[in-house]
Amino acid sequence: VVEIPLDDASAITLAVRREAERIGVGMSIAVVDEGGNLKAFARMDNAELAGVELARDKAYTALTNSVSTHELATLAAPGGPLFGLHALVGGRYVIFGGGIPLRKGGAIVGAIGVSGGAVEEDIACANAGVAAWDALVGARSGGSA
Amino acid sequence: VVEIPLDDASAITLAVRREAERIGVGMSIAVVDEGGNLKAFARMDNAELAGVELARDKAYTALTNSVSTHELATLAAPGGPLFGLHALVGGRYVIFGGGIPLRKGGAIVGAIGVSGGAVEEDIACANAGVAAWDALVGARSGGSA
Amino acid sequence: VVEIPLDDASAITLAVRREAERIGVGMSIAVVDEGGNLKAFARMDNAELAGVELARDKAYTALTNSVSTHELATLAAPGGPLFGLHALVGGRYVIFGGGIPLRKGGAIVGAIGVSGGAVEEDIACANAGVAAWDALVGARSGGSA
Amino acid sequence: VVEIPLDDASAITLAVRREAERIGVGMSIAVVDEGGNLKAFARMDNAELAGVELARDKAYTALTNSVSTHELATLAAPGGPLFGLHALVGGRYVIFGGGIPLRKGGAIVGAIGVSGGAVEEDIACANAGVAAWDALVGARSGGSA
Repeated sequence: VVEIPLDDASAITLAVRREAERIGVGMSIAVVDEGGNLKAFARMDNAELAGVELARDKAYTALTNSVSTHELATLAAPGGPLFGLHALVGGRYVIFGGGIPLRKGGAIVGAIGVSGGAVEEDIACANAGVAAWDALVGARSGGSA
Repeated sequence: VVEIPLDDASAITLAVRREAERIGVGMSIAVVDEGGNLKAFARMDNAELAGVELARDKAYTALTNSVSTHELATLAAPGGPLFGLHALVGGRYVIFGGGIPLRKGGAIVGAIGVSGGAVEEDIACANAGVAAWDALVGARSGGSA
Repeated sequence: VVEIPLDDASAITLAVRREAERIGVGMSIAVVDEGGNLKAFARMDNAELAGVELARDKAYTALTNSVSTHELATLAAPGGPLFGLHALVGGRYVIFGGGIPLRKGGAIVGAIGVSGGAVEEDIACANAGVAAWDALVGARSGGSA
Repeated sequence: VVEIPLDDASAITLAVRREAERIGVGMSIAVVDEGGNLKAFARMDNAELAGVELARDKAYTALTNSVSTHELATLAAPGGPLFGLHALVGGRYVIFGGGIPLRKGGAIVGAIGVSGGAVEEDIACANAGVAAWDALVGARSGGSA
């Protein structure tokens, strides 16, 4: 089963883009599926190039570690229980904010990664993508009055 | 200056997807800018995972070598003048079809890469993306009444 | 459009070299374009070999992250918002001084990276390159009689 | 001892550039020292991006294997005694023309690598660099009447 169809990934990406435009920051936006493999990517016209890899790797980190990357900022900091994580798997694990898992019925089915602004901006934009995804899931699961 | 804005890259990607749907093959589609950096990526719901890297690397190869990757199939084959190319730069050069440069006024300003079907299908879908780009460029360069 | 022609990149490189000679330190000097791709490189005769990669990667880091690398020394230090950055993208991000973006009309159009001395020396020499570039841009944007 | 000072490497690079301009092809040009480490690099304004890595790797291949890379096209072809060479050392060995050792008194003291045109054009431009180097060496070794 395809948990996050391309149409949904595009909708998530667009929601992030709208939020990024609203706050006036150029972002790179990535969505990965439940296998950690890239589903959709978009780099806004004013986004710095680091996002090509950081957005994808934030999403990959969130998916593979079942955690938002801003939580890793504490867990993987010097003194934290996961210190050293950032150097593993060839440098693909990002331990600052902008990567967030996407859930469905409690299970993680993918992740979003956003890069381009200050960490707080990246997180805010990623959350816009999560909200778009949750709305899609909610609409499909129906709802009572 | 942004030669291929995200809106154009999205339009190119969508044109490829429509052609892929028409012929019934799941494709991964990548667009890179004039610096070889990823601008947009989409993996269709029935596309195999190899396309995540092959679509991007086909686009990268076409951009950096100023050539369609199906032309490299001959140039870089045993006996050809560029034999060995496929093993260079860490294995990022794809020497079979599906990567095509995007041009504007004769200059290469980006490239498209498509992966997921037989080589001829990849090429056909990439050409649909080139046609969409050329139409965008043509429409902007003015037209007659 | 070529924002930093080879002649300009050579002039920037030479300006750095003159400053390095003045302070008596062997430097490696790299200039990358707006796509992060190497445009020019020179290693002085008394420069250590680390500069072959560090100069280029400092320039790459400054370009892709839109920041001088000495600013990353704080941002990416333990406790900083970007801690962990130095291990990402295969170890290409340098988070100590010597990489500085090159700007034109406010936009980042390339970057310079210098390596070979103490960090403060690298920064001083990189600044000599930035000054040379700014002078070139200023001279072309017109001037009064 | 520095066998190929930066001034010489710059002169070699410039000689290649002049030949490339004469034949109207954009080239990337690299010079490596006797340790195989990059000494100088220049990418002309109309050169394709592949040369960033291919020029350097051609020079590296010629230096480390003590051979011009066009000779490897035969030696490392299917059926040749070195078949498989192109896939070694992470894909840094280029087995088509454009890399040539630089010699002094019979000993190899560096190499030049040129990339950007057809293989024959790359070789011709690399030879212009070798000629410039040989002239520098000859002028210094004195001459009789």
